[in-house]
Amino acid sequence: MKVSVLGLGAMGSGIARNALRIDPSLLVWNRSAAKSAPLVAAGAHAAQSPKAAALERDIVLSMLADDSALEAVLEGPDGLLAGLAPGALHVSMSTIAPATAERLGERHRERGQRFIAAPVFGRPDAAAAAKLFIVAAGDPAECERARPLLEALGQRVFLVGERPAAANVVKLCGNFMILSAVEAFAEAMALARKSGVPAAQLVEVLTGSLFDCIAYRGYGSTLAQERFRPAGFAAPLGLKDMRLVAQAAEAQRVPMPLVGLLRDHLLETIALEGEDIDWSAIGRTIARHGGL
Amino acid sequence: MKVSVLGLGAMGSGIARNALRIDPSLLVWNRSAAKSAPLVAAGAHAAQSPKAAALERDIVLSMLADDSALEAVLEGPDGLLAGLAPGALHVSMSTIAPATAERLGERHRERGQRFIAAPVFGRPDAAAAAKLFIVAAGDPAECERARPLLEALGQRVFLVGERPAAANVVKLCGNFMILSAVEAFAEAMALARKSGVPAAQLVEVLTGSLFDCIAYRGYGSTLAQERFRPAGFAAPLGLKDMRLVAQAAEAQRVPMPLVGLLRDHLLETIALEGEDIDWSAIGRTIARHGGL
Amino acid sequence: MKVSVLGLGAMGSGIARNALRIDPSLLVWNRSAAKSAPLVAAGAHAAQSPKAAALERDIVLSMLADDSALEAVLEGPDGLLAGLAPGALHVSMSTIAPATAERLGERHRERGQRFIAAPVFGRPDAAAAAKLFIVAAGDPAECERARPLLEALGQRVFLVGERPAAANVVKLCGNFMILSAVEAFAEAMALARKSGVPAAQLVEVLTGSLFDCIAYRGYGSTLAQERFRPAGFAAPLGLKDMRLVAQAAEAQRVPMPLVGLLRDHLLETIALEGEDIDWSAIGRTIARHGGL
Amino acid sequence: MKVSVLGLGAMGSGIARNALRIDPSLLVWNRSAAKSAPLVAAGAHAAQSPKAAALERDIVLSMLADDSALEAVLEGPDGLLAGLAPGALHVSMSTIAPATAERLGERHRERGQRFIAAPVFGRPDAAAAAKLFIVAAGDPAECERARPLLEALGQRVFLVGERPAAANVVKLCGNFMILSAVEAFAEAMALARKSGVPAAQLVEVLTGSLFDCIAYRGYGSTLAQERFRPAGFAAPLGLKDMRLVAQAAEAQRVPMPLVGLLRDHLLETIALEGEDIDWSAIGRTIARHGGL
Repeated sequence: MKVSVLGLGAMGSGIARNALRIDPSLLVWNRSAAKSAPLVAAGAHAAQSPKAAALERDIVLSMLADDSALEAVLEGPDGLLAGLAPGALHVSMSTIAPATAERLGERHRERGQRFIAAPVFGRPDAAAAAKLFIVAAGDPAECERARPLLEALGQRVFLVGERPAAANVVKLCGNFMILSAVEAFAEAMALARKSGVPAAQLVEVLTGSLFDCIAYRGYGSTLAQERFRPAGFAAPLGLKDMRLVAQAAEAQRVPMPLVGLLRDHLLETIALEGEDIDWSAIGRTIARHGGL
Repeated sequence: MKVSVLGLGAMGSGIARNALRIDPSLLVWNRSAAKSAPLVAAGAHAAQSPKAAALERDIVLSMLADDSALEAVLEGPDGLLAGLAPGALHVSMSTIAPATAERLGERHRERGQRFIAAPVFGRPDAAAAAKLFIVAAGDPAECERARPLLEALGQRVFLVGERPAAANVVKLCGNFMILSAVEAFAEAMALARKSGVPAAQLVEVLTGSLFDCIAYRGYGSTLAQERFRPAGFAAPLGLKDMRLVAQAAEAQRVPMPLVGLLRDHLLETIALEGEDIDWSAIGRTIARHGGL
Repeated sequence: MKVSVLGLGAMGSGIARNALRIDPSLLVWNRSAAKSAPLVAAGAHAAQSPKAAALERDIVLSMLADDSALEAVLEGPDGLLAGLAPGALHVSMSTIAPATAERLGERHRERGQRFIAAPVFGRPDAAAAAKLFIVAAGDPAECERARPLLEALGQRVFLVGERPAAANVVKLCGNFMILSAVEAFAEAMALARKSGVPAAQLVEVLTGSLFDCIAYRGYGSTLAQERFRPAGFAAPLGLKDMRLVAQAAEAQRVPMPLVGLLRDHLLETIALEGEDIDWSAIGRTIARHGGL
Repeated sequence: MKVSVLGLGAMGSGIARNALRIDPSLLVWNRSAAKSAPLVAAGAHAAQSPKAAALERDIVLSMLADDSALEAVLEGPDGLLAGLAPGALHVSMSTIAPATAERLGERHRERGQRFIAAPVFGRPDAAAAAKLFIVAAGDPAECERARPLLEALGQRVFLVGERPAAANVVKLCGNFMILSAVEAFAEAMALARKSGVPAAQLVEVLTGSLFDCIAYRGYGSTLAQERFRPAGFAAPLGLKDMRLVAQAAEAQRVPMPLVGLLRDHLLETIALEGEDIDWSAIGRTIARHGGL
């Protein structure tokens, strides 16, 4: 199986490194070429363009920052669409709007190319350790074709339907639920602290009982220790995701009152703390509202 | 160790049954005496009043519906305060206001009696199976004294400080976080469903990855199956707890925007569905807002 | 018409001064007696207790700080209930819970006394200038009996029904709507200011067109000039009123999402600014959230 | 002064009719030509394209449905940009994003054309009666040049700065404040009604005292009588405006919690009532939440 990886940020680099185990001839591409060097040192080959990375490949994975970065990689004379062979498969792992995924699928279909969406849950350390949770959707045969590769990148692969956009909906729902959990935990901590209960004690009880899971253990500890820099997931990226949720909710006519609240707390956090802070620093904003 | 249990509702009955294993001479009392019968059949003895249940006992557990029910049990000529020996211990397991716990502690202290708070997480089935999570606070020596009993009632006992009210704060925080999780899950489900992703699929992915814990697995399944009757925890009780949270937040000057949202969704659910529905039926309200 | 006034705070003093024009033999009472001096200098007579102020009077007006202050004035051997003659009328002008008004009415009825509620809109300067808006409710004959007196105190008297509590509901709704208007104006100002439009310009346009009314002109200018001290209406009093609204809303099963928002902004304002600031200083909190 | 009007919807038609009084040779254009007929009957002349309407004119007014409709009118071989003479003035009266106004101003500047923004407050009946409130911004000399025309269209013209976008910010703030007022009034009405106070009575008291202004009198009566069809301003247009507010707020990093609430109530109203209902029908949604 001949594989390429487009996009070598913190997430894409870890993914590419694990993809090397499936295809030792792996091709990689990144907009700023310098990020290819460590992977080339590990055995991969650097392509000069998305098109070059796609030629004669079976599967091209992409992991870009946002919708417009991904669309820029697809289009144009040097783009992925121009290089991918008919029947070859593009696996889109970025967190993008469901509507964008539908549009991309259409673009590939026009050229006889295949497309599935496979966004992931997990931070860069999980990507490096092949511990991602991968949510895939699209034509079942194509999902099966990608499965050995995806299983090399994550600890579990979920299939959520035949329309690629379904995977992006689930991914956005997950990010929304993570930040909602942070919000609730932070509000509870503010009350606990002002009532004389240390935040760490609240975390111990709740993650030792009803909330004994990754999201609460991880963010509970981050909040209690106020470990917001360096950002594991920067607040402006979180704001972008909440905007995608709000747009999808508006398109589907679904009120989601928590989204407005989360968005406002992110805006305030960015306005007062700057752009380089973790999205969970809404907890600091919430604490400050209580005079802490 | 001579033990009594006051309050034999769904929770108190399970607790009393397990307490029998610690003290085969267990005394039980309930406002409406009929509820004592099954426990008497199992070997316990029925007391005629809280005072009678307290006389010559080492530890009296109470599990009442709310603050005023508990206060009614304490006061008056037949009350717990009148019967409990100096040095004997009252373990309050009800979900009550932290301020009430402080007041009760003061009342006991005036008479040389001991008092700790030990509210619990878990439904009646967990109480029956001795699988409760117990959050205890108060004088450390008294907590140790109660520990063998508490360990017979639950799967884990957490100690959260020397002031009894601290346990009640943690308990209220926990209930607030559960309903917040329900809110977030239900909003995400509404978006997913209108986007063509079945609720059960969203639940499978999220409880199989980031949210693999009791609260999300239990309520995720309840929401996806819309299993809101019979109520595991009735909406008016949830509303009472959110009111206690709001009162504590107001007293401590802590804004908690989620509390207002949850309270409004409970009010609407009760206004449209009646008083006998589970508190997680806010999920039905949220779905209806989206036209589902 | 023999009249008494109970409660000589900023509002009650102005009211009493205007009541002197209707009854030159006016009796006044205040918990701390010093506040009676200026009115005695103006011709009123100081009573030693609410009971003494009520004896042989036709109408007793009360203007107290809150529900419990009013109830304290009614009850006890020196209370209003003990002094008011059968058939004499108590006009309650305080901002209290509708449920409290119903209870007070019942207490008076038991003794053959009359009761109407007549809360007011307006600041102390409006009370002094007899420019209050008065919202009265209760037995129509009693309202007519009080009308000449009420018209001497305000610029307009509205009758809103035969149950006294109706007037208190309308009063609470009005205070809720005022603070909602402050919230909306302050959010708009924050956006305008960060977009380069001075707050005063926004105020000029909007109060010169769609919002040309007392509430917007007054608070628009207060917000634009950040004139929050001394408090015209202190934030803790506003918080008390929003609590009364929330309690009424809970009792009637009416979700009011704005109430939660306003309450949280008041809590944060008090937590960060102290208790002596005007309730409209939620505008400062809103501006701070945007980094202003 | 030679004038043209582009866009003959309900607002533009009224504006054009009044512009005829300033320029009897008025040119009008509309995408669907049929709407020109009544104005031609009144003496105006129909142009075949925005370009044709702009040639040799001093001032071109535009009143389009949204940002993209306005941009479509400007661009292309038959667009306004292609026809407007250097030094001639485009007065944009549409409710559009401030960022769009900045972009349009730049496009005109590149060609030596002039541009000011002059959005309006008022319904179609106000447009027909020349009773609009007009908020103008841009180069002061250009605003003065347009003033005689604007004064023929409205009852008052406000100048709010030298950057055209400032007028669009003020217009969006005004629409946000109107819908906020509707929200607050509707919440208060729900509480009043369930407490036994008719909505009309609440409206009478509040618009007769603190809120004696156009916005509250108009929407108070609409809400009390539930007169939501035909729509004076359709809910999807209100949703569009709230989206523009949210986008501006996100760009400026200003949390505006009311915007999220209003947007959710609009979404629910549209989901349950359809697209043809007035934006103030959020009041029906709010009432339904309380079981009314």
